[in-house]
Amino acid sequence: MSDIPEPALDCPYELTNEKTVFQGKWLITKQVDFKLRGTQNTGIWQSAHRPSRGNTLNADGVDIIATLKKDGKKYFILIKQYRIPIRRWILEFPAGLVDASDKSIEETGVRELKEETGYTVTRVIRYTAKGQFLNPGFSSDSSAFLLVEVDGNDPINQNPKQILDTDENIEVVLVECDKLLEYLDNVTKDGQVEVTSHVYSFALARLF
Amino acid sequence: MSDIPEPALDCPYELTNEKTVFQGKWLITKQVDFKLRGTQNTGIWQSAHRPSRGNTLNADGVDIIATLKKDGKKYFILIKQYRIPIRRWILEFPAGLVDASDKSIEETGVRELKEETGYTVTRVIRYTAKGQFLNPGFSSDSSAFLLVEVDGNDPINQNPKQILDTDENIEVVLVECDKLLEYLDNVTKDGQVEVTSHVYSFALARLF
Repeated sequence: MSDIPEPALDCPYELTNEKTVFQGKWLITKQVDFKLRGTQNTGIWQSAHRPSRGNTLNADGVDIIATLKKDGKKYFILIKQYRIPIRRWILEFPAGLVDASDKSIEETGVRELKEETGYTVTRVIRYTAKGQFLNPGFSSDSSAFLLVEVDGNDPINQNPKQILDTDENIEVVLVECDKLLEYLDNVTKDGQVEVTSHVYSFALARLF
Repeated sequence: MSDIPEPALDCPYELTNEKTVFQGKWLITKQVDFKLRGTQNTGIWQSAHRPSRGNTLNADGVDIIATLKKDGKKYFILIKQYRIPIRRWILEFPAGLVDASDKSIEETGVRELKEETGYTVTRVIRYTAKGQFLNPGFSSDSSAFLLVEVDGNDPINQNPKQILDTDENIEVVLVECDKLLEYLDNVTKDGQVEVTSHVYSFALARLF
Protein backbone atom coordinates (compact mmCIF):
# COMPACT_ATOMS: atom_id res chain seq x y z
CA MET A 1 0.00 0.00 0.00
CA SER A 2 2.95 2.33 0.36
CA ASP A 3 3.93 2.22 -3.29
CA ILE A 4 2.55 5.24 -5.04
CA PRO A 5 0.43 4.26 -8.03
CA GLU A 6 0.76 5.86 -11.43
CA PRO A 7 -0.97 9.22 -11.71
CA ALA A 8 -4.64 8.93 -12.64
CA LEU A 9 -5.35 9.81 -16.28
CA ASP A 10 -7.17 12.93 -15.21
CA CYS A 11 -4.40 14.15 -12.92
CA PRO A 12 -4.53 17.97 -13.02
CA TYR A 13 -0.80 18.26 -12.22
CA GLU A 14 2.42 17.49 -14.00
CA LEU A 15 4.56 15.71 -11.41
CA THR A 16 8.33 15.53 -11.83
CA ASN A 17 11.52 14.91 -9.90
CA GLU A 18 9.97 12.70 -7.23
CA LYS A 19 12.41 11.67 -4.55
CA THR A 20 12.63 10.04 -1.15
CA VAL A 21 14.10 12.60 1.24
CA PHE A 22 13.97 10.42 4.37
CA GLN A 23 13.85 6.64 4.48
CA GLY A 24 13.02 5.37 7.95
CA LYS A 25 12.01 2.01 9.30
CA TRP A 26 8.50 3.27 10.10
CA LEU A 27 8.09 6.35 7.93
CA ILE A 28 9.22 7.50 4.48
CA THR A 29 9.22 11.17 3.52
CA LYS A 30 8.90 12.05 -0.17
CA GLN A 31 8.76 15.17 -2.23
CA VAL A 32 7.75 15.92 -5.79
CA ASP A 33 7.64 19.03 -7.98
CA PHE A 34 4.20 19.87 -9.31
CA LYS A 35 2.82 22.17 -11.97
CA LEU A 36 -0.90 22.72 -12.43
CA ARG A 37 -1.56 21.73 -16.06
CA GLY A 38 -2.35 24.60 -18.37
CA THR A 39 -0.69 27.12 -16.04
CA GLN A 40 2.77 28.18 -14.95
CA ASN A 41 1.86 27.57 -11.29
CA THR A 42 4.38 25.30 -9.66
CA GLY A 43 5.38 24.10 -6.22
CA ILE A 44 6.83 21.30 -4.14
CA TRP A 45 4.66 18.72 -2.35
CA GLN A 46 6.09 16.89 0.66
CA SER A 47 4.36 13.88 2.16
CA ALA A 48 4.72 11.01 4.64
CA HIS A 49 4.25 7.33 3.74
CA ARG A 50 4.36 4.00 5.52
CA PRO A 51 7.04 1.62 4.29
CA SER A 52 5.70 -1.51 2.64
CA ARG A 53 5.32 -4.38 5.12
CA GLY A 54 4.46 -6.89 2.40
CA ASN A 55 0.78 -6.16 2.92
CA THR A 56 -1.32 -7.33 -0.05
CA LEU A 57 -4.61 -5.65 0.95
CA ASN A 58 -5.71 -2.19 -0.19
CA ALA A 59 -5.26 -0.56 3.21
CA ASP A 60 -2.38 0.16 5.57
CA GLY A 61 -4.51 -0.62 8.61
CA VAL A 62 -8.01 -1.34 9.92
CA ASP A 63 -10.12 0.68 12.36
CA ILE A 64 -12.75 -1.28 14.25
CA ILE A 65 -16.08 0.31 15.19
CA ALA A 66 -17.36 -2.11 17.80
CA THR A 67 -20.50 -2.06 19.89
CA LEU A 68 -20.67 -4.07 23.09
CA LYS A 69 -24.04 -5.22 24.43
CA LYS A 70 -23.95 -6.08 28.11
CA ASP A 71 -26.69 -6.32 30.72
CA GLY A 72 -29.18 -4.42 28.58
CA LYS A 73 -26.85 -1.53 27.76
CA LYS A 74 -24.98 -0.73 24.56
CA TYR A 75 -21.47 0.73 24.45
CA PHE A 76 -18.86 1.73 21.89
CA ILE A 77 -15.49 0.10 22.56
CA LEU A 78 -12.77 2.75 22.34
CA ILE A 79 -9.14 2.66 23.37
CA LYS A 80 -6.97 5.26 25.04
CA GLN A 81 -3.36 5.20 23.98
CA TYR A 82 -0.37 7.43 24.69
CA ARG A 83 0.75 8.77 21.31
CA ILE A 84 4.36 9.80 21.10
CA PRO A 85 4.01 12.19 18.10
CA ILE A 86 1.56 14.28 20.15
CA ARG A 87 2.74 13.64 23.72
CA ARG A 88 -0.82 13.04 24.80
CA TRP A 89 -3.30 10.26 25.53
CA ILE A 90 -5.65 9.89 22.57
CA LEU A 91 -9.11 8.27 22.38
CA GLU A 92 -9.27 6.16 19.25
CA PHE A 93 -11.14 3.33 17.63
CA PRO A 94 -9.24 0.08 18.22
CA ALA A 95 -7.03 -0.31 15.13
CA GLY A 96 -3.99 -2.03 13.78
CA LEU A 97 -1.74 -2.36 10.79
CA VAL A 98 -2.37 -5.04 8.18
CA ASP A 99 0.27 -7.81 8.37
CA ALA A 100 1.87 -9.45 5.33
CA SER A 101 0.07 -12.69 6.17
CA ASP A 102 -3.39 -11.12 6.54
CA LYS A 103 -5.92 -12.45 4.03
CA SER A 104 -8.70 -9.92 4.61
CA ILE A 105 -9.73 -6.68 6.31
CA GLU A 106 -12.09 -8.77 8.42
CA GLU A 107 -9.31 -11.04 9.68
CA THR A 108 -7.06 -8.10 10.56
CA GLY A 109 -9.81 -6.25 12.38
CA VAL A 110 -11.04 -9.21 14.40
CA ARG A 111 -7.48 -9.96 15.52
CA GLU A 112 -6.66 -6.35 16.41
CA LEU A 113 -9.85 -5.94 18.45
CA LYS A 114 -8.93 -9.08 20.40
CA GLU A 115 -5.33 -7.97 20.96
CA GLU A 116 -6.05 -4.38 21.94
CA THR A 117 -9.23 -4.89 23.99
CA GLY A 118 -9.48 -8.60 24.80
CA TYR A 119 -12.96 -8.80 23.26
CA THR A 120 -13.96 -11.56 20.85
CA VAL A 121 -16.17 -10.49 17.95
CA THR A 122 -19.65 -12.01 18.00
CA ARG A 123 -20.88 -10.73 14.64
CA VAL A 124 -19.31 -8.87 11.72
CA ILE A 125 -21.71 -6.22 10.43
CA ARG A 126 -19.81 -4.65 7.56
CA TYR A 127 -16.37 -3.76 6.31
CA THR A 128 -14.83 -1.64 3.59
CA ALA A 129 -12.95 -3.42 0.81
CA LYS A 130 -10.13 -0.88 0.98
CA GLY A 131 -8.74 1.84 3.17
CA GLN A 132 -10.07 5.34 3.63
CA PHE A 133 -7.47 8.11 3.84
CA LEU A 134 -6.55 9.55 7.21
CA ASN A 135 -4.93 12.77 6.04
CA PRO A 136 -4.68 12.81 2.24
CA GLY A 137 -2.94 16.15 1.76
CA PHE A 138 -0.14 15.13 4.08
CA SER A 139 0.18 11.36 3.90
CA SER A 140 -0.89 8.30 1.91
CA ASP A 141 -1.71 6.40 5.12
CA SER A 142 -5.04 4.60 4.92
CA SER A 143 -7.25 2.55 7.20
CA ALA A 144 -10.27 0.42 6.34
CA PHE A 145 -13.29 0.19 8.65
CA LEU A 146 -14.66 -2.99 10.18
CA LEU A 147 -18.01 -2.76 12.02
CA VAL A 148 -18.69 -5.49 14.56
CA GLU A 149 -20.89 -6.44 17.50
CA VAL A 150 -19.58 -7.97 20.70
CA ASP A 151 -21.87 -9.88 23.07
CA GLY A 152 -20.63 -8.86 26.50
CA ASN A 153 -22.74 -11.52 28.20
CA ASP A 154 -21.09 -14.36 26.28
CA PRO A 155 -18.79 -16.27 28.70
CA ILE A 156 -15.84 -15.69 26.34
CA ASN A 157 -16.20 -11.94 26.92
CA GLN A 158 -16.55 -12.03 30.72
CA ASN A 159 -12.90 -11.34 31.51
CA PRO A 160 -11.44 -9.78 28.37
CA LYS A 161 -7.63 -9.93 28.44
CA GLN A 162 -5.52 -7.79 26.13
CA ILE A 163 -2.62 -9.33 24.21
CA LEU A 164 -0.39 -6.28 23.82
CA ASP A 165 2.97 -5.88 22.15
CA THR A 166 5.71 -5.36 24.71
CA ASP A 167 5.92 -1.64 23.90
CA GLU A 168 2.18 -0.93 23.87
CA ASN A 169 0.21 0.78 26.58
CA ILE A 170 -3.51 0.76 25.85
CA GLU A 171 -6.57 1.26 28.06
CA VAL A 172 -10.01 0.04 27.03
CA VAL A 173 -12.76 2.64 27.35
CA LEU A 174 -16.46 1.77 27.12
CA VAL A 175 -18.81 4.65 26.32
CA GLU A 176 -22.60 4.35 26.23
CA CYS A 177 -23.57 4.69 22.58
CA ASP A 178 -26.04 7.54 23.01
CA LYS A 179 -23.61 9.58 25.13
CA LEU A 180 -20.53 9.47 22.90
CA LEU A 181 -20.37 13.14 21.87
CA GLU A 182 -21.07 14.37 25.39
CA TYR A 183 -18.42 11.99 26.74
CA LEU A 184 -15.75 13.13 24.27
CA ASP A 185 -16.42 16.80 24.90
CA ASN A 186 -16.15 16.21 28.63
CA VAL A 187 -12.95 14.19 28.80
CA THR A 188 -11.06 16.34 26.30
CA LYS A 189 -11.83 19.59 28.13
CA ASP A 190 -8.69 19.78 30.25
CA GLY A 191 -6.27 18.80 27.47
CA GLN A 192 -4.96 15.66 29.15
CA VAL A 193 -6.86 13.46 26.68
CA GLU A 194 -7.54 14.17 23.01
CA VAL A 195 -9.49 12.37 20.28
CA THR A 196 -9.00 11.36 16.67
CA SER A 197 -10.79 13.22 13.87
CA HIS A 198 -12.64 10.13 12.71
CA VAL A 199 -13.91 9.20 16.18
CA TYR A 200 -15.04 12.79 16.69
CA SER A 201 -16.78 13.16 13.31
CA PHE A 202 -18.52 9.81 13.97
CA ALA A 203 -19.82 11.29 17.23
CA LEU A 204 -20.81 14.60 15.61
CA ALA A 205 -23.02 12.80 13.08
CA ARG A 206 -25.72 12.33 15.69
CA LEU A 207 -26.40 16.07 15.47
CA PHE A 208 -27.64 15.68 11.87
CA MET B 1 0.78 23.85 16.87
CA SER B 2 3.79 22.06 15.43
CA ASP B 3 5.91 22.49 18.56
CA ILE B 4 5.79 19.32 20.56
CA PRO B 5 4.66 20.02 24.12
CA GLU B 6 6.44 18.62 27.17
CA PRO B 7 5.56 15.02 27.91
CA ALA B 8 2.44 14.69 30.06
CA LEU B 9 3.18 13.82 33.68
CA ASP B 10 1.68 10.39 33.21
CA CYS B 11 3.66 9.58 30.07
CA PRO B 12 4.26 5.80 30.10
CA TYR B 13 7.48 6.14 28.07
CA GLU B 14 10.94 7.53 28.67
CA LEU B 15 11.71 9.57 25.56
CA THR B 16 15.30 10.42 24.68
CA ASN B 17 17.47 11.54 21.78
CA GLU B 18 14.73 13.35 19.87
CA LYS B 19 15.90 14.73 16.55
CA THR B 20 14.64 16.25 13.34
CA VAL B 21 15.63 13.90 10.51
CA PHE B 22 14.06 15.95 7.70
CA GLN B 23 13.23 19.63 7.74
CA GLY B 24 11.05 20.61 4.80
CA LYS B 25 9.07 23.72 3.99
CA TRP B 26 5.79 21.81 4.40
CA LEU B 27 6.69 18.79 6.48
CA ILE B 28 9.11 17.97 9.29
CA THR B 29 10.09 14.39 10.09
CA LYS B 30 11.21 13.58 13.63
CA GLN B 31 12.33 10.55 15.53
CA VAL B 32 12.77 9.74 19.18
CA ASP B 33 13.96 6.73 21.18
CA PHE B 34 11.37 5.36 23.59
CA LYS B 35 11.42 2.93 26.49
CA LEU B 36 8.25 1.74 28.17
CA ARG B 37 8.71 2.71 31.84
CA GLY B 38 9.28 -0.18 34.20
CA THR B 39 10.45 -2.44 31.35
CA GLN B 40 13.47 -2.90 29.11
CA ASN B 41 11.26 -2.58 26.01
CA THR B 42 12.64 0.05 23.69
CA GLY B 43 12.17 1.28 20.13
CA ILE B 44 12.29 4.24 17.77
CA TRP B 45 9.23 6.33 16.93
CA GLN B 46 9.19 8.31 13.66
CA SER B 47 6.54 10.91 12.93
CA ALA B 48 5.53 13.72 10.57
CA HIS B 49 4.74 17.27 11.69
CA ARG B 50 3.65 20.52 10.09
CA PRO B 51 6.13 23.38 10.41
CA SER B 52 4.89 26.26 12.51
CA ARG B 53 3.18 28.92 10.43
CA GLY B 54 2.88 31.32 13.34
CA ASN B 55 -0.56 29.94 14.09
CA THR B 56 -1.70 30.82 17.61
CA LEU B 57 -4.78 28.57 17.76
CA ASN B 58 -4.79 25.00 19.09
CA ALA B 59 -5.26 23.38 15.69
CA ASP B 60 -3.28 23.11 12.46
CA GLY B 61 -6.43 23.39 10.36
CA VAL B 62 -10.23 23.45 10.34
CA ASP B 63 -12.65 21.00 8.72
CA ILE B 64 -16.07 22.42 7.90
CA ILE B 65 -19.19 20.23 8.11
CA ALA B 66 -21.69 22.30 6.17
CA THR B 67 -25.29 21.62 5.29
CA LEU B 68 -26.91 23.48 2.41
CA LYS B 69 -30.67 23.95 2.34
CA LYS B 70 -32.01 24.72 -1.11
CA ASP B 71 -35.47 24.37 -2.62
CA GLY B 72 -36.69 22.11 0.18
CA LYS B 73 -33.74 19.72 0.04
CA LYS B 74 -30.79 19.37 2.39
CA TYR B 75 -27.25 18.56 1.26
CA PHE B 76 -23.78 18.12 2.73
CA ILE B 77 -21.20 20.30 1.00
CA LEU B 78 -18.14 18.19 0.18
CA ILE B 79 -15.16 18.88 -2.02
CA LYS B 80 -13.27 16.66 -4.42
CA GLN B 81 -9.58 17.39 -4.66
CA TYR B 82 -6.67 15.70 -6.40
CA ARG B 83 -4.23 14.69 -3.67
CA ILE B 84 -0.64 14.32 -4.75
CA PRO B 85 0.48 12.01 -1.88
CA ILE B 86 -2.10 9.45 -3.02
CA ARG B 87 -2.36 10.18 -6.76
CA ARG B 88 -6.12 10.12 -6.53
CA TRP B 89 -9.16 12.38 -6.29
CA ILE B 90 -10.37 12.42 -2.69
CA LEU B 91 -13.78 13.41 -1.29
CA GLU B 92 -13.25 15.55 1.78
CA PHE B 93 -14.92 18.06 4.03
CA PRO B 94 -13.94 21.58 2.94
CA ALA B 95 -10.92 22.44 5.09
CA GLY B 96 -7.96 24.73 5.36
CA LEU B 97 -4.91 25.53 7.43
CA VAL B 98 -5.07 28.14 10.16
CA ASP B 99 -3.19 31.32 9.19
CA ALA B 100 -0.97 33.29 11.55
CA SER B 101 -3.49 36.14 11.49
CA ASP B 102 -6.54 33.98 12.27
CA LYS B 103 -8.24 34.92 15.52
CA SER B 104 -10.57 31.91 15.85
CA ILE B 105 -11.52 28.50 14.52
CA GLU B 106 -14.79 30.07 13.40
CA GLU B 107 -13.06 32.77 11.33
CA THR B 108 -10.76 30.25 9.65
CA GLY B 109 -13.59 27.87 8.80
CA VAL B 110 -15.95 30.50 7.44
CA ARG B 111 -13.17 31.84 5.18
CA GLU B 112 -12.09 28.42 3.96
CA LEU B 113 -15.65 27.38 3.11
CA LYS B 114 -16.04 30.57 1.08
CA GLU B 115 -12.71 30.10 -0.72
CA GLU B 116 -13.07 26.41 -1.52
CA THR B 117 -16.80 26.27 -2.33
CA GLY B 118 -17.97 29.86 -2.89
CA TYR B 119 -20.68 29.48 -0.24
CA THR B 120 -21.28 32.09 2.46
CA VAL B 121 -22.14 30.74 5.91
CA THR B 122 -25.65 31.62 7.10
CA ARG B 123 -25.40 30.24 10.63
CA VAL B 124 -22.62 28.79 12.76
CA ILE B 125 -23.91 25.79 14.73
CA ARG B 126 -20.91 24.68 16.71
CA TYR B 127 -17.15 24.45 16.70
CA THR B 128 -14.42 22.72 18.65
CA ALA B 129 -12.05 24.89 20.67
CA LYS B 130 -9.05 22.89 19.46
CA GLY B 131 -8.02 20.39 16.83
CA GLN B 132 -8.79 16.70 16.75
CA PHE B 133 -5.97 14.44 15.58
CA LEU B 134 -6.02 13.08 12.05
CA ASN B 135 -3.54 10.23 12.48
CA PRO B 136 -2.02 10.35 15.96
CA GLY B 137 0.35 7.39 15.73
CA PHE B 138 1.96 8.83 12.61
CA SER B 139 1.65 12.59 12.79
CA SER B 140 0.78 15.47 15.11
CA ASP B 141 -1.39 17.11 12.45
CA SER B 142 -4.72 18.29 13.85
CA SER B 143 -7.90 19.85 12.53
CA ALA B 144 -10.78 21.42 14.43
CA PHE B 145 -14.39 21.05 13.31
CA LEU B 146 -16.75 23.88 12.44
CA LEU B 147 -20.43 23.02 11.85
CA VAL B 148 -22.42 25.49 9.78
CA GLU B 149 -25.62 25.94 7.80
CA VAL B 150 -25.77 27.58 4.40
CA ASP B 151 -29.04 28.97 3.03
CA GLY B 152 -28.89 28.07 -0.66
CA ASN B 153 -31.89 30.26 -1.44
CA ASP B 154 -30.21 33.41 -0.13
CA PRO B 155 -29.26 35.63 -3.11
CA ILE B 156 -25.63 35.66 -1.93
CA ASN B 157 -25.49 31.89 -2.47
CA GLN B 158 -27.12 31.78 -5.91
CA ASN B 159 -23.90 31.74 -7.92
CA PRO B 160 -21.20 30.56 -5.54
CA LYS B 161 -17.75 31.39 -6.89
CA GLN B 162 -14.62 29.73 -5.53
CA ILE B 163 -11.56 31.82 -4.66
CA LEU B 164 -8.83 29.23 -5.15
CA ASP B 165 -5.08 29.48 -4.73
CA THR B 166 -3.32 29.37 -8.09
CA ASP B 167 -2.20 25.77 -7.52
CA GLU B 168 -5.53 24.41 -6.25
CA ASN B 169 -7.97 22.30 -8.20
CA ILE B 170 -11.15 21.70 -6.23
CA GLU B 171 -14.64 20.57 -7.26
CA VAL B 172 -17.68 21.20 -5.07
CA VAL B 173 -19.87 18.13 -4.52
CA LEU B 174 -23.35 18.34 -3.01
CA VAL B 175 -24.74 15.12 -1.55
CA GLU B 176 -28.26 14.75 -0.17
CA CYS B 177 -27.84 14.35 3.58
CA ASP B 178 -29.76 11.10 3.93
CA LYS B 179 -27.88 9.46 1.05
CA LEU B 180 -24.30 10.17 2.10
CA LEU B 181 -23.15 6.63 2.90
CA GLU B 182 -24.78 5.18 -0.22
CA TYR B 183 -23.20 7.94 -2.32
CA LEU B 184 -19.69 7.39 -0.94
CA ASP B 185 -19.88 3.62 -1.42
CA ASN B 186 -21.01 4.13 -4.99
CA VAL B 187 -18.47 6.68 -6.18
CA THR B 188 -15.49 4.99 -4.55
CA LYS B 189 -16.24 1.59 -6.10
CA ASP B 190 -14.03 1.90 -9.17
CA GLY B 191 -11.03 3.38 -7.34
CA GLN B 192 -10.96 6.67 -9.27
CA VAL B 193 -12.25 8.55 -6.26
CA GLU B 194 -11.51 7.85 -2.59
CA VAL B 195 -12.69 9.37 0.68
CA THR B 196 -11.18 10.56 3.94
CA SER B 197 -11.55 8.51 7.12
CA HIS B 198 -13.41 11.26 8.94
CA VAL B 199 -15.94 11.84 6.15
CA TYR B 200 -16.52 8.10 5.95
CA SER B 201 -16.92 7.54 9.70
CA PHE B 202 -19.33 10.49 9.78
CA ALA B 203 -21.38 8.69 7.11
CA LEU B 204 -21.15 5.32 8.87
CA ALA B 205 -22.64 6.76 12.06
CA ARG B 206 -26.11 6.68 10.55
CA LEU B 207 -25.99 2.88 10.86
CA PHE B 208 -25.98 3.15 14.67
